[in-house]
Amino acid sequence: MFLGVSSMLRRTVQTRANDIATVYNGRQQTWAELYDKTARLAGGLAKLGLDIDERIALIVNNSDRYVEIALASAWAGSVVTPLNGRWSVPELLDAMEDSTPLVLMIDDANLESGKQVAEAYRKSGHKLTLLFSGDGKCPEGFEDYTALCKSEPIEDAGRMGDDLFTIFYTGGTTGRSKGVMLSHTNIMASAIGSMAEGHFGERGIYINMLPTFHLSSMWPYIACVCSGAKTISLPGFVPEDVLAAIQKYKVTETLLVPTMVQMLIEHPDFSKYDTSSMTHIIYGAAPITEALVDRAVKAFPSADFVQAYGMTELSPLATTLQFEHLHGEGRRLGRNRSVGRATFGVEVEIVDEDDNPVPRGTVGEIKVRGANRMLGYWNRPEETKAAIIDGWMHTGDGGYMDEGGFVFMVDRIKDMIISGGENIYSVEVENCVTQHPAVSQCAVIGVPDEKWGERVQACVILHPGANSGIEQDIIDHCRALIAHYKCPRTVVFRDSFPLSGAGKVLKRELRKEYAPD
Amino acid sequence: MFLGVSSMLRRTVQTRANDIATVYNGRQQTWAELYDKTARLAGGLAKLGLDIDERIALIVNNSDRYVEIALASAWAGSVVTPLNGRWSVPELLDAMEDSTPLVLMIDDANLESGKQVAEAYRKSGHKLTLLFSGDGKCPEGFEDYTALCKSEPIEDAGRMGDDLFTIFYTGGTTGRSKGVMLSHTNIMASAIGSMAEGHFGERGIYINMLPTFHLSSMWPYIACVCSGAKTISLPGFVPEDVLAAIQKYKVTETLLVPTMVQMLIEHPDFSKYDTSSMTHIIYGAAPITEALVDRAVKAFPSADFVQAYGMTELSPLATTLQFEHLHGEGRRLGRNRSVGRATFGVEVEIVDEDDNPVPRGTVGEIKVRGANRMLGYWNRPEETKAAIIDGWMHTGDGGYMDEGGFVFMVDRIKDMIISGGENIYSVEVENCVTQHPAVSQCAVIGVPDEKWGERVQACVILHPGANSGIEQDIIDHCRALIAHYKCPRTVVFRDSFPLSGAGKVLKRELRKEYAPD
Repeated sequence: MFLGVSSMLRRTVQTRANDIATVYNGRQQTWAELYDKTARLAGGLAKLGLDIDERIALIVNNSDRYVEIALASAWAGSVVTPLNGRWSVPELLDAMEDSTPLVLMIDDANLESGKQVAEAYRKSGHKLTLLFSGDGKCPEGFEDYTALCKSEPIEDAGRMGDDLFTIFYTGGTTGRSKGVMLSHTNIMASAIGSMAEGHFGERGIYINMLPTFHLSSMWPYIACVCSGAKTISLPGFVPEDVLAAIQKYKVTETLLVPTMVQMLIEHPDFSKYDTSSMTHIIYGAAPITEALVDRAVKAFPSADFVQAYGMTELSPLATTLQFEHLHGEGRRLGRNRSVGRATFGVEVEIVDEDDNPVPRGTVGEIKVRGANRMLGYWNRPEETKAAIIDGWMHTGDGGYMDEGGFVFMVDRIKDMIISGGENIYSVEVENCVTQHPAVSQCAVIGVPDEKWGERVQACVILHPGANSGIEQDIIDHCRALIAHYKCPRTVVFRDSFPLSGAGKVLKRELRKEYAPD
Repeated sequence: MFLGVSSMLRRTVQTRANDIATVYNGRQQTWAELYDKTARLAGGLAKLGLDIDERIALIVNNSDRYVEIALASAWAGSVVTPLNGRWSVPELLDAMEDSTPLVLMIDDANLESGKQVAEAYRKSGHKLTLLFSGDGKCPEGFEDYTALCKSEPIEDAGRMGDDLFTIFYTGGTTGRSKGVMLSHTNIMASAIGSMAEGHFGERGIYINMLPTFHLSSMWPYIACVCSGAKTISLPGFVPEDVLAAIQKYKVTETLLVPTMVQMLIEHPDFSKYDTSSMTHIIYGAAPITEALVDRAVKAFPSADFVQAYGMTELSPLATTLQFEHLHGEGRRLGRNRSVGRATFGVEVEIVDEDDNPVPRGTVGEIKVRGANRMLGYWNRPEETKAAIIDGWMHTGDGGYMDEGGFVFMVDRIKDMIISGGENIYSVEVENCVTQHPAVSQCAVIGVPDEKWGERVQACVILHPGANSGIEQDIIDHCRALIAHYKCPRTVVFRDSFPLSGAGKVLKRELRKEYAPD
């Protein structure tokens, strides 16, 4: 049985007690200090009623306190449940009602929406303790984070193996987010497995500025706890801040989405910063163009660029494209456009609709298994059963595999758009657009966008007689209902959709019209 | 849940089908060929009655067929059980009676003892199929390995997680060997964990010449199956053959015991061979002197020397001493004399007799936990219960930990001698010596030996009136009963032993007499 997150913290503090563990906004702490704080903060959480398997929800920006609360929650035996601060209040409430946390932790940046969702959650009969983890003064009615960190330490709950460590919400095709349950084994297998791939070395200095509700933020933190690497946290992605931090802390490693890579290297002051310490850049969550890779390699000449493909349900790593395949023989064979090969310890297969393996080169659904595969969806046995068949996670992503085991994505079976690294489910946006009184039918697709990779576009058939000058009105209508990043950035009007024999909108055809190759 | 060995073979053949997997004595095969052979050989094993969890015992020298049979056994769902070809027939029979295999695989080099033990095993009422895996002509009464490899392939049994993969016999303090049960999770955790430490890289070329009844032979093979590294197999350790193979195959990595390191670099023709391809040498199983490390580093200037400490029960890795600690700051702090720090994914603690952690610098028993910890001892629930307490393997090794988490071995609580990398339990040798009619009392200890690290020495009190010129007679007496490598190399006669208050022989005192610092 795999040990748990707190075991790994203990191992690292045993071997590098006085090395710096985390850096944030001018403050830093050693592994020994982080260890002591973890046991105390866990004591504080226990006082707030966080018993084994109880949830603590977070609506916070990235900081050292994000990793602290994750460790303390594991230590106390509870389940850390980060929520998306960019969601609308109804969306947040939905996830709260689903995960029923006893505690909600909020920072300065998310105070207003946090308060609103807390009020609504309490109104519907739930008990909730509010915990303030911001740097400002603790508001009334909140427990104070720094005070909680001075609680009496408690014994490690000793969580490991299949014990639940975290719930991450991921977009659902039914319009409601699903809670992905990840165990200690899941996150540990992912951490150790990615170390075997060469990531998160113990001598590394990692910069983490990804949104806290993404596993791509939590996973590197836990991997660094396993290896003893130092992490530099930034509250969010501001290109100049990232560049300045790389220079200041001699950062060696990070994980970014391609949009961020582009924003960094296109920053007008890029050359003013010394970024030569970077040796390892993982990118993922969206395709990257050859041109961008070439420019990025030139901009970070001492860095290996490694593409990762995965999903929250896989903790998250499924495939890895090592740097060597981006050029030379790899590029000649077009493998630089793949998402790489099955990560160590993981099996990947491409299957047809009847779950039978297809020959190399044939498109099918990508399925994956390994110790990194989630326990299931929180409170959703039916959807879990549909996603996990004979132990394999059916990703809903379409792709094919070449003779060398390299996986090429060709389509998203789940009809999802990836814009700026965010997964957006078309059906959720469609549900929203069609609620507009003038809209008769709607198909939402991703169209190529230089900045965001893909842009959400609503293709709309209006009711007869409706005014066609209402693009902004439809966008505003969506913004009142769902997170801004999910809303259409463009709206186009049409008289008809290309349809399949069965009358289904052929989105592939539709996408072709707006993005001819 | 961790996937199993056959999953990892499938992953590797998916990603590097046409790369060379194994090389032995002029023959070689690709991963695709090895994969095909595995499914066929598994079909052959199934025909021989090897059902789920049934054992197949091996008495073989190292070769490509050793890894083939391990993979095929995993594929068929059976349990590969390597036995020590250097054991006496009674010892072999003992392990056979314990593990009750249906099949025994023997090669040319072990044919005679194999036949003898098979006959004795059958005599005591057991059914047994003999399988000949040697390169010579298949003897009568044996199944032929190459013919079996042409069987109809079968479906992978899909073994993983806690399913039993292998049983390795390890010396027992009661004089009888214990079968260590290792699961697919155990061996996989060890393989991936050691890859995270930087061993067994996918571009590596590994040379394996260790005895097949040692996990240090099986573990690298399975790790190479996980990573896709190529392995060169030699039947045993012959210094000149190893040097020639390193040159011929541009070997990058190996695992040796210190005695072997010494024999390599002291070989008169060492400088005639090009060994500059070596980048990674793991050594373990016994302490290494500073002088030897220095000479070894000079002899292999491009190689990192990494010390590993572990035991069969830990699949086998517990601690790792990275190369950087052998010199500079590490040597200044004396850490080059440690066995290193807890391996990634593993927890190590030093505890007192009541199982409470002791302060740093204080000697206690080393205990270890992690996904690499064995399932238990085969058919020995009591000894399993004594060894695994609250999930921790109590190693029986004494040591202390410094402030940096480096573990220093100081004593073997289990009273074991390590000679030429072999574990020898004193009690087993003592049981044997005291059966000699002239011997009244005996205490067996290890004394320093330039070639073997330690040498087995019997300290004997004779019966009154017995002739004291019988050293060789006592040695010969032992050789008739136990494996030669376990027998005393020196016998000394004494009038008394240093005793504790309770009347127990103080072996530490005894050792001091023969090995003053």
